[in-house]
Amino acid sequence: MEVISENMSHGGVQGVYKHFAKTNECEMTFAVFTPPNRETPPPVLWYLSGLTCNHSNVMEKGEYREIAAELGITIVCPDTSPRGDNVPDERDNWQFGLGAGFYLDATQRPFSVNYNMYSYILHELTELIDNKFKVDMSRQGIFGHSMGGHGALTMALKNPKRFKSCSAFAPISQPSNASWSTPAFEKYLGQKNDEWRKYDAVSLIEDGHLFPEFFVDQGKGDSFLQDGLRPWLLVDACKDAGIKIKLRMHENYDHSYFFISTFMKDHLHWHHSRL
Amino acid sequence: MEVISENMSHGGVQGVYKHFAKTNECEMTFAVFTPPNRETPPPVLWYLSGLTCNHSNVMEKGEYREIAAELGITIVCPDTSPRGDNVPDERDNWQFGLGAGFYLDATQRPFSVNYNMYSYILHELTELIDNKFKVDMSRQGIFGHSMGGHGALTMALKNPKRFKSCSAFAPISQPSNASWSTPAFEKYLGQKNDEWRKYDAVSLIEDGHLFPEFFVDQGKGDSFLQDGLRPWLLVDACKDAGIKIKLRMHENYDHSYFFISTFMKDHLHWHHSRL
Repeated sequence: MEVISENMSHGGVQGVYKHFAKTNECEMTFAVFTPPNRETPPPVLWYLSGLTCNHSNVMEKGEYREIAAELGITIVCPDTSPRGDNVPDERDNWQFGLGAGFYLDATQRPFSVNYNMYSYILHELTELIDNKFKVDMSRQGIFGHSMGGHGALTMALKNPKRFKSCSAFAPISQPSNASWSTPAFEKYLGQKNDEWRKYDAVSLIEDGHLFPEFFVDQGKGDSFLQDGLRPWLLVDACKDAGIKIKLRMHENYDHSYFFISTFMKDHLHWHHSRL
Repeated sequence: MEVISENMSHGGVQGVYKHFAKTNECEMTFAVFTPPNRETPPPVLWYLSGLTCNHSNVMEKGEYREIAAELGITIVCPDTSPRGDNVPDERDNWQFGLGAGFYLDATQRPFSVNYNMYSYILHELTELIDNKFKVDMSRQGIFGHSMGGHGALTMALKNPKRFKSCSAFAPISQPSNASWSTPAFEKYLGQKNDEWRKYDAVSLIEDGHLFPEFFVDQGKGDSFLQDGLRPWLLVDACKDAGIKIKLRMHENYDHSYFFISTFMKDHLHWHHSRL
């Protein structure tokens, strides 16, 4: 693991690190905020970012450090896809390829060589964090935004023993039948098949996966709300399955980091009280 | 004035706007955060950014919105220089030209046509803000970072009736004899002459300009501390002149926005209690 930068901030250290990821067969960059030292190692909260982002967007605009420092939480922000000249991509398509890994393990060539963000985060990066940082891996939570909010929901649903808390900002609810994600699912996973349901929050719930409770913030002024995000699908699925969900709809807020940063504090408190 | 974007954030509105500035003979972009509505119009706090920055850096990384919303302060973030293809520049020089206006009015051709950031901010942009936003112009404060921290100090010293409060993050103290600023001063103002003293905080104080009190935060791990910033020069000048100055030196903090955002809250409270 190579240190790209470490900056003191809010009494802790905001770091950016790089390593060669076997799972993705490429170099991966990620950000870790380490809160000020305490007697006990801090819990780990994973933040998964949305389409077009990398590790740095939420690090710069998410406004999480003050509260994470105060509550004593390590925040890990992975990239959203494999990177590099050798990674297959569609340059002019922001909904597929670089910046759009959808937190799944691709089954289709050539994408299956590098696009394994699910296993990368869940196993390889987790081991690295456990080895290189002083953290308490028995206390992990996960959250994210948009594609990453959905990634957090699916990872939590599939790993309810590992993650003790899950929340999301404006998550995609059902990517397997939303117009902005189905082309990517086809390329990563092949023509619609059972594999799609493993990376779709609503389908996972329908198929019996459970989680204690979700917390979701959504802006009513979000231009992706009606077609891409559709939180009511998630709410309905949760209700049918008996999963508690707290959805807050916010007048005038959009899909940007101006929205995320506004409600970041509430999410950190949500996770802190459960970790 | 053209609205580039307006996003709801922390209950207020973060806007980015553009207008043609006669003073600089070019289009200028600036950011304004308007806090949630109250009965009385909010005071205006000017934030001047450092070398290489434009209006957006502190808007994205400064973490000022939560507290500005809570305290009810309008934050105005101008650009650091004129912009555009017709504005003379030295492309590979980050200490001069675009992104490096030093908040002065240039006297030397060709720079004097566009590089008039002092008058632009103090007069033209001020009038625009007064006309287009619901603000209380009888309550104005000013702060900034590095080159912009120095800009804030000089504007306050030269306009102590207008600005009721002034603070700075890692300001340049005496640009007229620091190696990273003297070449720019020569190009903007000509070979060293009396004009230089009008845009130099320590010289202004030596020449009798007064201000009630300054508040300065400085990181001890700042790589520009010894040669470029030298806060002790400012402290000495203030002491000799009987100006109160509160300087805090912070272990391990550097020159970045990770430093600025950490202490932003303290600065907003400082200004709020004086506005």
